[in-house]
Amino acid sequence: MKIQPIRIDGDRLWDSLMEMAEIGATSKGGCNRQALTNEDRAGRSLFVNWCEEAGCKIKIDKMGNIFARRPGKDNSLSVLAGSHLDTQPTGGKYDGVYGVLAGLEVIRSLNDVGLETELPIEVVCWTNEEGARFSPAMIGSGVWAGEFDIEYGHTRTDKKGKNILDELKRIGYLGEEQCKAGAFKAAYELHIEQGPILEQEKTQIGVVTGVQGMRWYDLIIEGQSCHAGPTPMELRKDPVMGLQLILARLYKLIEDNTPWSRITFGDINAIPGSRNTVPEKIILSVDLRHPDQKILDELDSIFHAIVKQECNQSGLTGNIENKWNSPAVKFDNKCIDNVQQAVNQLGYKNIQMVSGAGHDSVYVSRVAPTSMIFVPCKDGLSHNELENASKSDLEAGCNVLLFAILNAMSN
Amino acid sequence: MKIQPIRIDGDRLWDSLMEMAEIGATSKGGCNRQALTNEDRAGRSLFVNWCEEAGCKIKIDKMGNIFARRPGKDNSLSVLAGSHLDTQPTGGKYDGVYGVLAGLEVIRSLNDVGLETELPIEVVCWTNEEGARFSPAMIGSGVWAGEFDIEYGHTRTDKKGKNILDELKRIGYLGEEQCKAGAFKAAYELHIEQGPILEQEKTQIGVVTGVQGMRWYDLIIEGQSCHAGPTPMELRKDPVMGLQLILARLYKLIEDNTPWSRITFGDINAIPGSRNTVPEKIILSVDLRHPDQKILDELDSIFHAIVKQECNQSGLTGNIENKWNSPAVKFDNKCIDNVQQAVNQLGYKNIQMVSGAGHDSVYVSRVAPTSMIFVPCKDGLSHNELENASKSDLEAGCNVLLFAILNAMSN
Repeated sequence: MKIQPIRIDGDRLWDSLMEMAEIGATSKGGCNRQALTNEDRAGRSLFVNWCEEAGCKIKIDKMGNIFARRPGKDNSLSVLAGSHLDTQPTGGKYDGVYGVLAGLEVIRSLNDVGLETELPIEVVCWTNEEGARFSPAMIGSGVWAGEFDIEYGHTRTDKKGKNILDELKRIGYLGEEQCKAGAFKAAYELHIEQGPILEQEKTQIGVVTGVQGMRWYDLIIEGQSCHAGPTPMELRKDPVMGLQLILARLYKLIEDNTPWSRITFGDINAIPGSRNTVPEKIILSVDLRHPDQKILDELDSIFHAIVKQECNQSGLTGNIENKWNSPAVKFDNKCIDNVQQAVNQLGYKNIQMVSGAGHDSVYVSRVAPTSMIFVPCKDGLSHNELENASKSDLEAGCNVLLFAILNAMSN
Repeated sequence: MKIQPIRIDGDRLWDSLMEMAEIGATSKGGCNRQALTNEDRAGRSLFVNWCEEAGCKIKIDKMGNIFARRPGKDNSLSVLAGSHLDTQPTGGKYDGVYGVLAGLEVIRSLNDVGLETELPIEVVCWTNEEGARFSPAMIGSGVWAGEFDIEYGHTRTDKKGKNILDELKRIGYLGEEQCKAGAFKAAYELHIEQGPILEQEKTQIGVVTGVQGMRWYDLIIEGQSCHAGPTPMELRKDPVMGLQLILARLYKLIEDNTPWSRITFGDINAIPGSRNTVPEKIILSVDLRHPDQKILDELDSIFHAIVKQECNQSGLTGNIENKWNSPAVKFDNKCIDNVQQAVNQLGYKNIQMVSGAGHDSVYVSRVAPTSMIFVPCKDGLSHNELENASKSDLEAGCNVLLFAILNAMSN
């Protein structure tokens, strides 16, 4: 096997990350660049300019996904690399952005040495990966991979009722290309881990073999609104009391299934939300995850049983609405091998691991051979303005991406 | 003692209540006529028209409180009767409205028989009693009684940032009168009980001797936002877990102090409120009540201790902001006696009781001899669109108000 002498430029990658982070920068050092906002438009345009400067041809599809292509010798089949530029409302500088700009850095580095690759490289920026503004998450890659139809993708709305189609038009990123996967030799997504495992293991690279299964629900607990003062406690149908009992049992359930179970209640709303009225209902978002699909299904059943029991005993009504269901994913063996080979060639300390977070690669893996590469992030923090990663780890990950791409073309 | 032969007209009172209920009527049979909205304007204007038709002189003060005056023989000192026309977002047809329209019905009944009273009667409609749109509650009577200054009253804002002064101007109810109590012989507020006690006791009239003490707080639980997937449960600083532990202990505390303690969590918000991010913080409204001021103070101390303990143990930060503090109230003995005498004269079944809810009378009682009269409401329900009361009970309560007013003038 021929070891490539080429390496990516860590300083240039870092500078691009920092310049992108200025768009939607928050006072605490993070980013608020939610999908299809003015900030997202500015971020996309900066990326497109950089890609054009690097000689790429840009294509934008009907979901606003951006593809920047560097041609190869044989242009029948490409290798895809990328992630997303949108962030959480209080997001960080690296989540998603790193994977997109690392793909660009691979192209820039190949340009530096004038290397024409066997196959074209396409760097992709997917629309609305985070799901923070429009639900569900990963909608751009989801439509592209056939999980959702384009009509569904266009009609998702944010909390203010604005839909994706109108917002794509407004920011000038409604493309003309069909949003549909072509033929790819391989697809790689480089990402910060968003968890603490690599840091705890003092390891620089995670060779990612799959993604844990995850389910999103809305739990609606209905009681009876009444006046806060004169209504004796024992005569109330208080949905907050039901919430407390259900939360206690769910946290216990997850504690009994350590270390791989995860439960998150990211949003809670009381209706009507008046401080001297017992709420009529509580709406709670529930995010449930496990890498083993069988265990996840069991947790799902127990969750339903807990809600039924506690609501029945408290005179409340509990309804669980399924919002999203992403089964556990096993990535392509050949892609994983190419990443493992790249890490071995470069000599970085590494482990194989399962991703705790969902990524566009979940959908991409349905239509193209796919795998992921992780680098550590500080304290495992992500979806947080304090999200951080070291320059040397970011550089190492980008070199692995470069080598994995070249390996995919020659293996 | 001379028993008055006069009685109020129950049909006319009922018809007025039903006509007022059409303004801001909800699909479930309740009312949404929040303070200083267009609906509140329409309700006020209907009331003012009715009062003018009944020969009253209208005065509006700088907090938008409306006073409709029927002169007496000696005009140096008035008797006040009234309540409020604003409602909760999902409120009922009787809370507040009944007290205002019953005052009007007393005047109409006196007009019917051409009886000139010893002293003038003033029917009052107070601004923003509910506190649902603008916090704190009872702001109109509060400024009038000197609890708040006019600047404070004018600058309270709703969730959209609109303030009371601008909204008073917008709906045309910023009056020119000073918002300041004059001299009153007595003040009565007739109200539905908003609790289940009269109904359970099969009793028509509650002679109200005081109001329980109440405190409003915002509890802010701060943790650390992080990604829902990859962050192991044991490494999280999850404010929802803190919320669950605190709610469990507070519900237990109140259960240990039955039957007179009350706690209500009317509003809950997660920040930033994204379903795949552990929230950075939870903001919870807390409403704590007890008729015994000493016990309420103890509950307040234990509440602070619980928040401190649970947050310390969970690596969270807990802050309690005091939003409102209304000490327990004891009404004027002479006013209570006049109501008790009225009930005895009329022969209605009655009990003496303490109000579980706050009312404008809490503030009015600081500057005028004051007491309240309660009638039952169905299932004790209030702050609810299903709020209901029987026509015969409403008629009985209004007769008690009439007699209490006349007793105040002669005793």
